[in-house]
Amino acid sequence: MTLKLHSYWRSSASYRVRIALNLKGIAHEIIPVHLLRDGGQQHSLEYRALNPQGRVPLMVDGDLRLTQSLAMLEYLEALHPVPALLPTDEAQRALVRAFCLTIAADIQPLQNLSTLAYLGEYFSAGEDEKAVWLRHWIEVGLVALEDQQAQRPLQTFLFGNQPGMAECCLVPQMYAARRFRCDLKKFPRLAEVSSRCEALPAFTAAHPDQQPDAETR
Amino acid sequence: MTLKLHSYWRSSASYRVRIALNLKGIAHEIIPVHLLRDGGQQHSLEYRALNPQGRVPLMVDGDLRLTQSLAMLEYLEALHPVPALLPTDEAQRALVRAFCLTIAADIQPLQNLSTLAYLGEYFSAGEDEKAVWLRHWIEVGLVALEDQQAQRPLQTFLFGNQPGMAECCLVPQMYAARRFRCDLKKFPRLAEVSSRCEALPAFTAAHPDQQPDAETR
Repeated sequence: MTLKLHSYWRSSASYRVRIALNLKGIAHEIIPVHLLRDGGQQHSLEYRALNPQGRVPLMVDGDLRLTQSLAMLEYLEALHPVPALLPTDEAQRALVRAFCLTIAADIQPLQNLSTLAYLGEYFSAGEDEKAVWLRHWIEVGLVALEDQQAQRPLQTFLFGNQPGMAECCLVPQMYAARRFRCDLKKFPRLAEVSSRCEALPAFTAAHPDQQPDAETR
Repeated sequence: MTLKLHSYWRSSASYRVRIALNLKGIAHEIIPVHLLRDGGQQHSLEYRALNPQGRVPLMVDGDLRLTQSLAMLEYLEALHPVPALLPTDEAQRALVRAFCLTIAADIQPLQNLSTLAYLGEYFSAGEDEKAVWLRHWIEVGLVALEDQQAQRPLQTFLFGNQPGMAECCLVPQMYAARRFRCDLKKFPRLAEVSSRCEALPAFTAAHPDQQPDAETR
């Protein structure tokens, strides 16, 4: 049975997993869940039956229904170890995971749709205020990661000479940074690595604009 | 050289790692970093030199300076595999990681001090408004986890008969839920497992009130 990924084209977390599936060449089916259309398809009874939390992505592999993009990346890494998304040295593995978590736990939760909706609802935040909020958290997080990278030897990718779990998280976060008009000059090394990745087929095919539910703006 | 954990008594993320160190019986030194005193000791030049992001926890093990509590739990699990904090089956491991990430990436970032400070600064949120915000995100996240647990066979702990990575994340989150006066009746099974854990020595010793920087309120 083909692995299924319930995904939204512009969801950073979905985008991370799409990249990993492509890098590893794992056969899969993308099932679009539109987070805005029909009042949010993630709230449909059908989708809630699969994922009571009503979020994307959701990965279905046989009997396993899995939430949380980073748990999916670890699962794919364990079941399909080649090409590896993590280094072999435990200290380096830890640093890659910390990089990913800085994006997934320090930045992304503050930029996602449900957080922004609640800011609007509860603090009457308008679009301009939401944009300032978004840029604040994205820039604080990415500047911290840029500083950490500046302490490492310069390599082709963030943690070596091939893209891995860190790049699966970086590229969607840089997409969001551009979308919300952050000042990319504040994190030049991250921007450079991201550009290098974005030229690779695994990343190109995972891009929001290449998804079945992509919209022209 | 003894492993060092830079920790704040009431930090959920620090608390998670303290539990794991105790469960595995790893010798370590706790170095308190007070997030409020002296304008926030995490902003001191000395601490920023160790961790430019200025957050806790920070783990120092030889040359490794590691941020992000979940990266620390994985690192400790890899280097000190007994007792295991993760099951052996890959699908079960993935579900445990997803549980942890729901707390670390869906709930905690919205409740932490820097987020609350920015809500106050940017949206002029007062203490009451912050409390509503906190309870909203904690309850939404814990209800989702309670629903997931309700679909699993009842066991002594969340994913089996011993506490592991999921409990390292659950107990600090329940501490925060009580502190911010959430309605614990909304997640009875989580509350029950948490109470069972809190009676165990590894958890008792990791409790905020047992830390060198604990304050009496």
